[in-house]
Amino acid sequence: MSDSPEHRIVVVGGVAGGMSCAARARRLDERAEITVLERGEHVSFANCGLPYHVGGEIDDAAALLVQTPQSLRAALDLDVRTGHDVVALDARAKTVTVRTASGTHELPYDTLVLSPGARAVRPAIRGLDSPRVRTLRTVDDAITLRERVDDGARRAVVLGAGFIGVEAAEALAGRGLEVELVDVAPHVLPALDPELAHLVAAELGRIGVRTRPGTAATEIVPREGGDEVLLADGTVLEADLIVLSAGVRPDTETFEAAGVVCERGAVVTDEHGRTNLPDVWAVGDAVASTDAVTGLRRPVALAGPANRAGRLVADAIVRGPDASRPIPAPLGTTVVRVGDLTAATTGASRRAVAEAGIAVHTLHLHPLHHAGYFPGAEPLHLVVHVRAGDGLLLGAQAVGSSGVDKRIDVLATALRNHATVADLIDLDLAYAPPYGQAKDPVNLAGLVGSNVLDGTLRLWYADELEDTLRTSLVLDVRSEAEFASGHLPGSVNVPHTDLRERISEVRSAAGGRPVRTLCGSGVRSHLAHRILAQAGLDSASLSGGMLTLRATLAATADQILTTDDPLARAS
Amino acid sequence: MSDSPEHRIVVVGGVAGGMSCAARARRLDERAEITVLERGEHVSFANCGLPYHVGGEIDDAAALLVQTPQSLRAALDLDVRTGHDVVALDARAKTVTVRTASGTHELPYDTLVLSPGARAVRPAIRGLDSPRVRTLRTVDDAITLRERVDDGARRAVVLGAGFIGVEAAEALAGRGLEVELVDVAPHVLPALDPELAHLVAAELGRIGVRTRPGTAATEIVPREGGDEVLLADGTVLEADLIVLSAGVRPDTETFEAAGVVCERGAVVTDEHGRTNLPDVWAVGDAVASTDAVTGLRRPVALAGPANRAGRLVADAIVRGPDASRPIPAPLGTTVVRVGDLTAATTGASRRAVAEAGIAVHTLHLHPLHHAGYFPGAEPLHLVVHVRAGDGLLLGAQAVGSSGVDKRIDVLATALRNHATVADLIDLDLAYAPPYGQAKDPVNLAGLVGSNVLDGTLRLWYADELEDTLRTSLVLDVRSEAEFASGHLPGSVNVPHTDLRERISEVRSAAGGRPVRTLCGSGVRSHLAHRILAQAGLDSASLSGGMLTLRATLAATADQILTTDDPLARAS
Repeated sequence: MSDSPEHRIVVVGGVAGGMSCAARARRLDERAEITVLERGEHVSFANCGLPYHVGGEIDDAAALLVQTPQSLRAALDLDVRTGHDVVALDARAKTVTVRTASGTHELPYDTLVLSPGARAVRPAIRGLDSPRVRTLRTVDDAITLRERVDDGARRAVVLGAGFIGVEAAEALAGRGLEVELVDVAPHVLPALDPELAHLVAAELGRIGVRTRPGTAATEIVPREGGDEVLLADGTVLEADLIVLSAGVRPDTETFEAAGVVCERGAVVTDEHGRTNLPDVWAVGDAVASTDAVTGLRRPVALAGPANRAGRLVADAIVRGPDASRPIPAPLGTTVVRVGDLTAATTGASRRAVAEAGIAVHTLHLHPLHHAGYFPGAEPLHLVVHVRAGDGLLLGAQAVGSSGVDKRIDVLATALRNHATVADLIDLDLAYAPPYGQAKDPVNLAGLVGSNVLDGTLRLWYADELEDTLRTSLVLDVRSEAEFASGHLPGSVNVPHTDLRERISEVRSAAGGRPVRTLCGSGVRSHLAHRILAQAGLDSASLSGGMLTLRATLAATADQILTTDDPLARAS
Repeated sequence: MSDSPEHRIVVVGGVAGGMSCAARARRLDERAEITVLERGEHVSFANCGLPYHVGGEIDDAAALLVQTPQSLRAALDLDVRTGHDVVALDARAKTVTVRTASGTHELPYDTLVLSPGARAVRPAIRGLDSPRVRTLRTVDDAITLRERVDDGARRAVVLGAGFIGVEAAEALAGRGLEVELVDVAPHVLPALDPELAHLVAAELGRIGVRTRPGTAATEIVPREGGDEVLLADGTVLEADLIVLSAGVRPDTETFEAAGVVCERGAVVTDEHGRTNLPDVWAVGDAVASTDAVTGLRRPVALAGPANRAGRLVADAIVRGPDASRPIPAPLGTTVVRVGDLTAATTGASRRAVAEAGIAVHTLHLHPLHHAGYFPGAEPLHLVVHVRAGDGLLLGAQAVGSSGVDKRIDVLATALRNHATVADLIDLDLAYAPPYGQAKDPVNLAGLVGSNVLDGTLRLWYADELEDTLRTSLVLDVRSEAEFASGHLPGSVNVPHTDLRERISEVRSAAGGRPVRTLCGSGVRSHLAHRILAQAGLDSASLSGGMLTLRATLAATADQILTTDDPLARAS
């Protein structure tokens, strides 16, 4: 049946997953009748490019329209209908009901592919229907926001500090607006671990975005000269425009009502994209996926996995599921530009692994993105989570000004291949001084992780600071000058190069307590740990050193760290 | 024995592999006596940085000295002796003979690690001992070459167009010299496939380096105002300085004479670095490795694999081989900057897989390095070799101005993990418009390869052009304007968007011959192939399209391609 001349494939939703499915179906089957129904004005538009139109980097909104119904008809003989909203499905009759500007009609199908996507979450904020509030989900949204900026908006409030919210805030700040970025989550980019999110927040501050984490907006009050946004902490912000980016949820009511099985609103499919209804398939942001690392089920709203699934659903429709590969579980790899920084993640965050109950070692590294002796080397702040016991890679995140996306892509590839820390050591990555290091940051993560797993290195963590200060001797093995520039109260300074000669001094200062070493980034404190451990002391090295400690302490760092206190030094 | 207090580890060679081994041995064993003997003036210097000192990007030569004997003593308690040349080994007595400026002495060892590295190949060129000839292997070489440039050298000849030769040529051209780059190989960077090497040669030309492939230097004749370099083709080049970079070979005569088993000069070891002699180990450029893809045996002169092996040898020495991981087979991943371009490779080239007798499909792609609608998108020229039958990734190469190293690192990671083309599709890579595409170039390579393997796509290749023109109808599916700008003689132009309507015209033009489609980069000709194949025609699509065809034809492209010949068009 799938290759009978009259095979009618109807695709609901003409972006990412839906359009990938339609295009692949045509390449496999010249004779099928393929119809794509899109509620909006545009298909295959560049939704990831919208913030850059607001910010002006993509000047011409037409550049966001990657394909048009005309170009898709010409190249792929697709019947693409915009302004066609599917409002009902009758799976028994095999028809969908379509509402257009000129009325409602039924459309029959042999095979139906649902790619309805997601819609913006609208939190319980009074006054959210103010005309100054806008989401950033469509080309029209981007054009409107840009017009408001062009028309003189000076103050913006962005509600939601996820990826889109951060990109919108950056774009508006780049246009010279005063921008407030509000989120109820404890830090910006909730997908990031907090010690990296702190670096992003600092960069947002540098480019003129004021971040307000841990606070919800409760009400929007329209005023003549601009709306007032009331926050739960009592703050009142004035805004000429408000961007709502508080997340998305699957846009599936119509189909759930028609009998498509969903969980928490996301369509449930098998590994080939089949729903519970015969000849009804689903792909994209509206579909529940199993997390490749934690096994948790949730929808993933990302273009890459949607395109991939769309193509595989077309394979399964035309060639049959048995002749097609299953849809892979998405890793949820993400990247975002923030000012001069890049932040990227793959796999599970520390919170995600904790929620899944997986025992982990977390590795913090701050290597240079290329050879230190070559001009322009910049630090890369890397966090890697590996499973305790076998060292299986679970997730990785990085923030830095250069080379971040490369390392996260390498780690995403390793993660997809079930790599362990030892496998990361063995990666043969391209090295020349302008591009990397002979031991690439990814290799270094493998080396550190391997040392932790086999007991060569034992780590302590910045979030154990309070306990550590109470129970242990903190041995700061940086130089005296570095120590003087800011150190932990009660810590003792012995530069790592002096440690072998001064080890009895350390033993005596410890007085039977554990010794916890620290340095700038964790390299020298590792060497010190090896000396101490081989001397029989209970020793551990601070993961990520002072750089991670400061990022973890965040705003409180300058209160906790003391400067130039000669009494705290071992003489 | 390995952890007895007096365990004497002697390491011959203080760069990369040797120093990695010494450092790791110390971290594992505080009590060992570790001595590093280095023939040269410096240890752990940045040999990959040398060309950039000549070119001035690394201004201070001191920056190339990453470690010194003093810093290594302080941090790692290593006894590092420069100017110590090991001239003999007595494996029975367990001693090495060391020659220094002040005489010769014996040094006993319990464990000996050989990391002698490689020395420059000196080809049979008369007059090669001219003082104007210099290799670029040491800090002193780099300083000397730079001084000669500072002193007014205007004309340089570089003998050997491998990675170092190309970097040296770029550096000298950057200083304003006239540079001639001579190699007997048929193209620059012999490790690259020719269609990519052509792009590098063009960039070298743009930055002022004249490339002379396929020609050997035969004699160097010293003259008052500069040497004359005579080439086999009769050319005479004048040179104020000559850089010899004709490759390297293992520097192992001393050890082979002492009974260390070598093959073609490279030390033979087991997977833990053990030689045939008791307690004698070897790492680095002097050791024979088994190629991870082809299984061929040869030494690999790269810093990354040397460092990795050095660490694993230390593990095996201190903990025992049974408690240590084996040394992985190197993939030989490389990267080089050439002007505004980056060229990188991982795994096997087309020549290497052909020599190994492996049947392959080669994929040529020219995707943009990030979203086309985001400003600054640049083409990435990607070549991927996959094994026929199962689609196992064998090797990949890329040239472009942005994002090249990232894609090769991802592919190197996939290669290390024995990925197939389908695995490349499933990689979840980081996407936002400034960083990549929703379908990353690596995913696209997987998609194309997967189509080739399952028969959805059939390719023809630029190096089959002559046969194809004789036997087939070449169908050029680009626009009329593109066709007019240069096309194959006898080819017929039907834009891919018109093909469904004009298919009977094509069938009639083919007259029973196979149809071979082509377009700009291979995307539209794939769509055309699908239409033709489903219409029952014998069809195939040109891999990499006109971009690959032009790079393959290289200098002859403009003679072969005709412009604006209306007779060749189907009306």
